[in-house]
Amino acid sequence: MARKNAFYAQSGGVTSVINASACGVIETARKHRDQIGKVLAGRNGIIGALREELIDTGKESKSAIRGLMTTPSGAFGSCRHKLKSLEENRAEYERLIEVFRAHNIGYFFYNGGGDSADTCLKVSQLSESLGYPIQAIHVPKTIDNDLPLTDNCPGFGSVAKYVAISTREAAMDVASMCETSTKVFILEVMGRHAGWIAAAAGLAAEKKGDAPHIILFPEIAFNQRKFIAAVRRAVKEHGYCVIVASEGAQHRDGTFLSESGLKDAFGHSQLGGLAPQLAQMVKDETGYKYHWAVSDYLQRSARHIASQTDLDQAYALGEKAVEFALAGENSVMPCIVRGKGKRYSWSIGKASLKKVANVEKMMPRSYITSDGFGITQRARNYLAPLIVGEAYPRYRNGMPVYTTLKNQLVPKKLDKRFNI
Amino acid sequence: MARKNAFYAQSGGVTSVINASACGVIETARKHRDQIGKVLAGRNGIIGALREELIDTGKESKSAIRGLMTTPSGAFGSCRHKLKSLEENRAEYERLIEVFRAHNIGYFFYNGGGDSADTCLKVSQLSESLGYPIQAIHVPKTIDNDLPLTDNCPGFGSVAKYVAISTREAAMDVASMCETSTKVFILEVMGRHAGWIAAAAGLAAEKKGDAPHIILFPEIAFNQRKFIAAVRRAVKEHGYCVIVASEGAQHRDGTFLSESGLKDAFGHSQLGGLAPQLAQMVKDETGYKYHWAVSDYLQRSARHIASQTDLDQAYALGEKAVEFALAGENSVMPCIVRGKGKRYSWSIGKASLKKVANVEKMMPRSYITSDGFGITQRARNYLAPLIVGEAYPRYRNGMPVYTTLKNQLVPKKLDKRFNI
Repeated sequence: MARKNAFYAQSGGVTSVINASACGVIETARKHRDQIGKVLAGRNGIIGALREELIDTGKESKSAIRGLMTTPSGAFGSCRHKLKSLEENRAEYERLIEVFRAHNIGYFFYNGGGDSADTCLKVSQLSESLGYPIQAIHVPKTIDNDLPLTDNCPGFGSVAKYVAISTREAAMDVASMCETSTKVFILEVMGRHAGWIAAAAGLAAEKKGDAPHIILFPEIAFNQRKFIAAVRRAVKEHGYCVIVASEGAQHRDGTFLSESGLKDAFGHSQLGGLAPQLAQMVKDETGYKYHWAVSDYLQRSARHIASQTDLDQAYALGEKAVEFALAGENSVMPCIVRGKGKRYSWSIGKASLKKVANVEKMMPRSYITSDGFGITQRARNYLAPLIVGEAYPRYRNGMPVYTTLKNQLVPKKLDKRFNI
Repeated sequence: MARKNAFYAQSGGVTSVINASACGVIETARKHRDQIGKVLAGRNGIIGALREELIDTGKESKSAIRGLMTTPSGAFGSCRHKLKSLEENRAEYERLIEVFRAHNIGYFFYNGGGDSADTCLKVSQLSESLGYPIQAIHVPKTIDNDLPLTDNCPGFGSVAKYVAISTREAAMDVASMCETSTKVFILEVMGRHAGWIAAAAGLAAEKKGDAPHIILFPEIAFNQRKFIAAVRRAVKEHGYCVIVASEGAQHRDGTFLSESGLKDAFGHSQLGGLAPQLAQMVKDETGYKYHWAVSDYLQRSARHIASQTDLDQAYALGEKAVEFALAGENSVMPCIVRGKGKRYSWSIGKASLKKVANVEKMMPRSYITSDGFGITQRARNYLAPLIVGEAYPRYRNGMPVYTTLKNQLVPKKLDKRFNI
C-alpha cells in the first residue's frame, strides 16, 4: 500500500472530549508512519478542506498532542457548515476530492454527529466514482447522544456528569434556603430534539423525593396544568422544587416553549431562554420565589469535570478509526458496544455509515416515568456508567492547563480559491 | 469558667465552603468539652433560635462532621431573615436571649455577611444589658466579598475559581466555532452591589486578547455606545467576543440594567436576566450570532471545583472563632490578614464588630482598567491567590459524595411560641 496522508476534521458543536478523539487519531497514525504520512487537520472543520487551509499536525510536539486529552473545545476549530446533497452542490464534494488529491490524502477522518456521518459517506462514494478513492471513517461525537448504532456518543457522558453534579449542588443550595427564600429553581440544559441531557440530571437523585423533582423532555408534550400541579406538590412535600428543562421542551403541536413570544418594551420579539419563561409561569401561577440558571456552553466545555469513561471512549474511537483505515475499511464508524454483563463494560464495534447517516436516536418512552417528569430505573441503568470517573486536568495557579496548538498551515497547492 | 453551650447559625446566601466553617467551629469546640458543652445549631439559621428549633450537633458522628468539609450549601439550613434594629423589634432580640438563657448558651457564633455581623453585635450588647452576657463572635462568609477589614471573605474564592474556569472553558468553545457560528457569548454572574465576582472572570485571561474581552461591573455606569463599540472591536480583532456581566450592572442613574422592562405577550413585565437582555441588544445593534449563560446558584454551590485556599480559610475562621470565645473575646470577627511578602500568605486576625457592621467593601477603582471593561494587574495580584488549589470532594459512581446530617432537635424548654 502506497503511503498516503490523512485528513482529520472536527464538525458541529464541540465537546469537552472531542480533542481526545483527535489525540487518538493522531497518536495512532504516528505509530504507523510507514502507511500514514502526515495527519492534516481542517482549519475550522470541513471548511478548512474546502479552502485548502490544512493544519500540519506534524509540527506539534508529542506533549502538545497529549495535551489534547485534557483540552476542551475544538483544537483545530470546528464549523456548522453542512454540505448539501450531491445533487444540490456537487461542486463542494468535487472540491474536497480535488484538495485531497492535491495533498495525497487517502484517509478521511470526520469527527462529528449525524450530518457529518452523511458527508463522510458521500465523500467515500464520490471519490470512488471520480477515480480517486478515499477511505472515509466517521468518528462519532455529539453531546446530544442521538446517533444510532453506538451505545452512546463521546461528549455526552461529560455533559451528563456536569448536569447531574450541577443539579445536585444547586438543589442542596435551594434546600438549605427554602424556608425563607427561593422555593423553585429551574435549570435549562441543552438538547433541542432529544432529552438525553435533561435525563442525566435525574442521576442527581438517589432516593425518592430527591431533586430534580421535575424534568421536562422534548419527547413529552408540555402540559401547563400538570406542570404547575407538580411544582405545587413538590413544594408542599419537600419545601422546594427543582426543575431541569431541556431547551427543546415543546407544546403538543411541536412548537418550542421557548418560542412563545416575549416582547421587549418596543414590541420586538425577545429571544429569551426557556428557563426565565418557565420561571415567569411559576411566579404567575403560584407566587413562589424562584431562581433560574442556563448553563449553555458551560455544560459542553466543562472539561474540569469530564467523565473518565467518556474520555477513554473518545480516545479509543479515534484510535480505532485509524486502525479501521489501516485494515482497509471504508464508509464505517467505530462505535461503542455495551457488554452484556451486569457490571458495565464496553468495547469498540463497527457500524456501516449507510445505517448511521441521518438517523436520530430518541429517548425510549420506557426511559421516562409515566407522569412524564422523571427517569425510570432503565434510564438510570443506561446513564449511570457513562459518568463514572473524574478525568481531572492539570492545574497551574488555580486554573486548568489547557493546550493551544500552533496550528501551522501547509502551503497551498491549488491555484483556485473556493468561495463558501 | 462555668461550662456553657454554644449556638451556631448560618445566615444569608449559602456558599460551597460555609460548612467548612461549621466544621471548624464544631471540631474545635469538641476539643474543649471542659469549657463548651453542646454546640447547638439553628435550624434554618437565626429563625431556629427564635423558634427554639435547635439542632444537637452532638448527635453527629466525627466523620459526619468531617464530611462538612466537602459539602456545599448550608448543612443546618440558612435564612434571609434580617433582624430589625433594636428600636423596631426589641422583642426578637429579647426572644433570642431568652432562648439562649433557657439552653445555657454562652457563646453565639454567627456565620454570615454584613447584616449578621450587625445582629451579632446587637446580641452581645443586649445580652449584657439584660444581665445574661453572651460572647458573640461573627464568622465571616459571603460570596460577594464585600465585608470590610478582612482581606477576603470565605465563599468568594470558590465562586471566583468557578467563574474563571467556566469563562475560560466557554471562551475556548466559542473560539473554536466562531468562524461560522456564535460570535458573542455572555455569561451573567452574581454580585448585585460589588463587582468582585465579575472581576474574577478576568483571571481566565493570561495574555492580551484572551477572553473575557468585556467585563461589566456594577461600579462602572453602563454606556451602550461604548459597550457595542467594544463588542465590535473584539469580534474584529479576535473573531469573537466573550462578555462577563455582573447581575448588578447599572445605568448612570443607578437603576439596574436587568430592570429595563421586558414585557410578555400580555404586557406583564418580565423578570428576565441581564444576559438575555444584553444578547438582544448585541443582536439588534450588530446582528452577531450570540449565546448566553446564567450560572446563578451553580456558581456558589460548585463544591466540585472549590478553591483549596478558600476551604482552608473557611475552616480556620471557624476554628479561630471558638478560640477567640475561649480566650474571652466578645463582639469580634476573625478575619483574613494577607502577608506582606511577594509570595501569598495569610493568617487570622481580629476585627471589632463595631467596625464591620453595615460597611460594604466595593472594588477599588484602581482594580478596573481605565476603559471600565477589564481588570488591572493590581486586581489580578489580589484575586489570583484566592483560587489556588483544587479541593476535590470524594466521588462514588461518578457523583460527589456530600454529607446530609441527622439534624435532630433538642427538646424545647420554653412554653411560649414565637411567631415570625
